[in-house]
Amino acid sequence: MRKSKAKPLRITMGIHAVHEALNVHPKWAKELWVKESAESQAQISPLVALAERLRIPIKPLSGRRLDELGSGHQGVALQLSESPELDESELDRDVCVLLALDQVTDPHNLGAVLRTSWLLGSRGVIIPEDRSVSLTPTVCKVAQGGAEHVPIIEVSPMDQELKRLKDKGFWVFGLSHKSTQTIFDLKLPDKVVWVLGAEGSGLRKPVERACDELISIPQLAPHASFNVSVAAGVALSETYRQLFFPKASK
Amino acid sequence: MRKSKAKPLRITMGIHAVHEALNVHPKWAKELWVKESAESQAQISPLVALAERLRIPIKPLSGRRLDELGSGHQGVALQLSESPELDESELDRDVCVLLALDQVTDPHNLGAVLRTSWLLGSRGVIIPEDRSVSLTPTVCKVAQGGAEHVPIIEVSPMDQELKRLKDKGFWVFGLSHKSTQTIFDLKLPDKVVWVLGAEGSGLRKPVERACDELISIPQLAPHASFNVSVAAGVALSETYRQLFFPKASK
Repeated sequence: MRKSKAKPLRITMGIHAVHEALNVHPKWAKELWVKESAESQAQISPLVALAERLRIPIKPLSGRRLDELGSGHQGVALQLSESPELDESELDRDVCVLLALDQVTDPHNLGAVLRTSWLLGSRGVIIPEDRSVSLTPTVCKVAQGGAEHVPIIEVSPMDQELKRLKDKGFWVFGLSHKSTQTIFDLKLPDKVVWVLGAEGSGLRKPVERACDELISIPQLAPHASFNVSVAAGVALSETYRQLFFPKASK
Repeated sequence: MRKSKAKPLRITMGIHAVHEALNVHPKWAKELWVKESAESQAQISPLVALAERLRIPIKPLSGRRLDELGSGHQGVALQLSESPELDESELDRDVCVLLALDQVTDPHNLGAVLRTSWLLGSRGVIIPEDRSVSLTPTVCKVAQGGAEHVPIIEVSPMDQELKRLKDKGFWVFGLSHKSTQTIFDLKLPDKVVWVLGAEGSGLRKPVERACDELISIPQLAPHASFNVSVAAGVALSETYRQLFFPKASK
């Protein structure tokens, strides 16, 4: 598995995302950008004070320059020297949950999946190196702090990587509404990869073939589909219930 | 409970949302708007053919006019005379699941919640009349067809409405990360209302007090929060598992 590449100029933005980055990775923080004359605003001033305490340079930026990063910056952005990387030894643990996104190109979906992964214990999000979004400012913003905790793992080709994970003891489940076996039929093993495709096109054939089984989330309208971040939330919460929840019967 | 108001000029947009509206409510469809010179595009021409078959007027519109409705129209929008309404007798059924959104003002979140409600069997989404979004083109687009199936129920005030539902035999659960009782600790009753607050501020006090119990979704980072549409997906999928899934132990 290739570790996620160090991205010297990763930028995160938005109050929550910048706050989390400053707190967990102060050494990665290179420069805090604050909208001109917004330093004293109620939500921004604590970030400015924290950056001063950490001796991180603070630079005023015009609203227009911040807008170029993407919408939703809330007047603040942070330049970071690095991104979380997967510790390969995580894969040798007895219990490990991963997500893989095939052809998910919408930054809001990737950001939302990172946010949920952080909260529900996925140790990494695998994406194809060739045709996906990477850790853009919008992805980091939507992840609301999740991008500081959950590594993005870029691989090529994805089906080979899934086979490698199977050799390490993972069960690889592809989410597909075509399957009659639902997520609630499963007794989940302790090492799981959930593979999610794009909302329209689903999983690519080689990726689908690399899965041990195809699994569906029950849905009352067979021709419709779940938003990918909602599907990830359902898969991870059911995994949490079965693997981590003490009182649940496994 | 007030039924959702008839909205004579509701507009939906985007390929999937327009397709679903034409299919399930052809009599509500008043005019199909198609981006100029896009009628023959692969995804749009079947909608044009369907509208012609249904004798629904078709009007070409400039891209700029469509853009005014909101992003994501994909070259097509549909004017509708009505919106789904709750059949009050639904509330007297033995099994019924509802969602209530307190202060959720983001149209993407409301649309995403409608989409998931459609797929996982929530019979309606309750919102406060005073301070929420309504069924805008963006909400309908993001719902991907869900807005044609799941009624929005505008109420005022929400705490009174929740009390009325309790009198009808519903259990009202407020989602709150403050609660130590999690969604996986519960044996769910057959009539459930899930109440979700805004991501930052949570539930308003009178709404929180109107809940029978506060329930959390387990999360590994206690200071973070789930996206409201992901939280709705987790709550509805666990409800589906317990109430509707034949093989699950209840």
